[in-house]
Amino acid sequence: MRAFSITSTTDSALQSLLQNKIDQKTKPLGALGQLESIAIQHGLIQKKLSPTLSNPYVLVCAGDHGAAKAGVSAYPQDVTWQMVENFLAGGAGINVFARQNGMSLAIADAGVAHDFAPQGQARPGLFDAKVGYGTANYLESPAMSPAQAEAAIEHGSYLAHQFADQGCSVLAFGEMGIGNTASAALMTHALTGAPLTNCIGRGTGLDDTGLARKNTLLAQAVTRAALPPEADPMTVLYEFGGFEIAMLAGAMLGAAERRCLLLIDGYIVGAAALLATRLYPALRDYCVFCHRSAEPGHQIQLAALQANPLIDLGLRLGEGTGAALAYPLVQAAANFLNEMASFASAGVAEKS
Amino acid sequence: MRAFSITSTTDSALQSLLQNKIDQKTKPLGALGQLESIAIQHGLIQKKLSPTLSNPYVLVCAGDHGAAKAGVSAYPQDVTWQMVENFLAGGAGINVFARQNGMSLAIADAGVAHDFAPQGQARPGLFDAKVGYGTANYLESPAMSPAQAEAAIEHGSYLAHQFADQGCSVLAFGEMGIGNTASAALMTHALTGAPLTNCIGRGTGLDDTGLARKNTLLAQAVTRAALPPEADPMTVLYEFGGFEIAMLAGAMLGAAERRCLLLIDGYIVGAAALLATRLYPALRDYCVFCHRSAEPGHQIQLAALQANPLIDLGLRLGEGTGAALAYPLVQAAANFLNEMASFASAGVAEKS
Repeated sequence: MRAFSITSTTDSALQSLLQNKIDQKTKPLGALGQLESIAIQHGLIQKKLSPTLSNPYVLVCAGDHGAAKAGVSAYPQDVTWQMVENFLAGGAGINVFARQNGMSLAIADAGVAHDFAPQGQARPGLFDAKVGYGTANYLESPAMSPAQAEAAIEHGSYLAHQFADQGCSVLAFGEMGIGNTASAALMTHALTGAPLTNCIGRGTGLDDTGLARKNTLLAQAVTRAALPPEADPMTVLYEFGGFEIAMLAGAMLGAAERRCLLLIDGYIVGAAALLATRLYPALRDYCVFCHRSAEPGHQIQLAALQANPLIDLGLRLGEGTGAALAYPLVQAAANFLNEMASFASAGVAEKS
Repeated sequence: MRAFSITSTTDSALQSLLQNKIDQKTKPLGALGQLESIAIQHGLIQKKLSPTLSNPYVLVCAGDHGAAKAGVSAYPQDVTWQMVENFLAGGAGINVFARQNGMSLAIADAGVAHDFAPQGQARPGLFDAKVGYGTANYLESPAMSPAQAEAAIEHGSYLAHQFADQGCSVLAFGEMGIGNTASAALMTHALTGAPLTNCIGRGTGLDDTGLARKNTLLAQAVTRAALPPEADPMTVLYEFGGFEIAMLAGAMLGAAERRCLLLIDGYIVGAAALLATRLYPALRDYCVFCHRSAEPGHQIQLAALQANPLIDLGLRLGEGTGAALAYPLVQAAANFLNEMASFASAGVAEKS
């Protein structure tokens, strides 16, 4: 895999200037809470006192999981390609929310077990980044080969650069893949060392029996892989990952190379962000965590990344919906920094 | 005071139809969390399966508090009128966020201790609803007379009807008034019976000394007023209220008469909502609680109203900023209900 050029955004002089600009706004100190942190982060990324958002994109990567047929999800595997068709037809949740908030939506087939067009033909609206017809079943073997993982990462990075070339400065990430909360659970366990069972949740709606089955199966996968405690992040991806997760990690790395703001959705996108920050720790500087998932493993990811998401609406849809819904708050952070009056300009008295 | 005509939105048949429509959307059951509750609430208010939002307004009411000069706030009283000037000039936080989210902003002088125009002249952009130059100091006497309270409520109701006549179906509420977290604390204590000290917080930024002083002063006010445990809500308003709080309560009642969705901001607007629901319990059906304030008394209000706000960003600015920032989520609730495909229309398999 090629090396990514991702630099920390730390700049204490600029940070002081940004903080000072914020503290001169006509409001009590700190009164805009998390929006103030995002404004500073955004300024540091763009190296500006007045950062701006342009050409926002949502990238939704879809992929299938070999383990899905073993019963780790409440839904049949065909739902992955059916939902991709729904994205292409404009009828899914992410279509609605991206449209509402003025974000362009890009859909990628990272590795769905389905042909979306006859062999050799392109499907309009769908970026073909297929590296396989779903991953291998991690109960039996690693989910993907190193070559597949690297190809998926490279596809993601390529797309992110395309968006940046079109003036995109903010990229939101979403996913579709039946069985991918299971993959995220395995990766979160392996990358953080948290107990496996703490990383496993009900996904899109398992009942108690289904949850028990998911726990049993994922414990078998961990035993089969027999990773050392401090396994290399790429090895974790080969063993347990999904093609959509690999592609998302690549898109994050590519977008951070171009100093885009990254809008991280929930648990599965969070697994990609966790992987990418383990590969390149400076990536963390570019991430805005958008929605707190109800999945218990997401709390473990957030603690590992010292992240506090913007919203917590009880969403468990995926597709990047949490990121698209949080985008107006990110816009608000830029807008208050650029548009609010200062005490001096407005003639308002400061705190006594 | 005239009687308001506010009817409960309860309609179990329509609620079932709305729930069924939501459950047919291409997503796991319940996967849009709080947005699903708002979609149902909105449908019940509009008596429609496809409710829509039109001509959104933010109404910011400003008023001064006689007790402010006794030292219940970190800011000088003049900041109230200076911030109204800032609203009129377009430079405050609420201007930025209302503009971003396509909401019209209306500013009302409910009782600021300042003349915004020479006697007898109107100030462009400012609705003159002044019922006094600030309330009386509740450490010495009731904050307002019954006639003042009723006039402020009537002004609010009148304005809400004006907005509804212009096609407004959703009204957000904000406030400005130095000292008004103290007023909200006294009202929350008197209306819920919660211990006074649990209702008192740091407002816009009191230090420990200031907070201790606020506690002492408000305890004196409670002793002075000597209200019975189950005091009449209007009496609570006379004793401890602010003109802006009374006007907001009136605007909520007027807007609910016209079946508008009401976007409730944080602690002070919450005090107005608590008052209005104690007067007319059916008002609760129209309220969407937008931002969870850090003020401890807000948690008491929310528990009393069985409310779970949409966002919690650590804001403590007031002005209706929490409501304006949450508005895109309310739009998203309407949009998914109206625009998302169903399993049948999209050809997606349901849960097995």
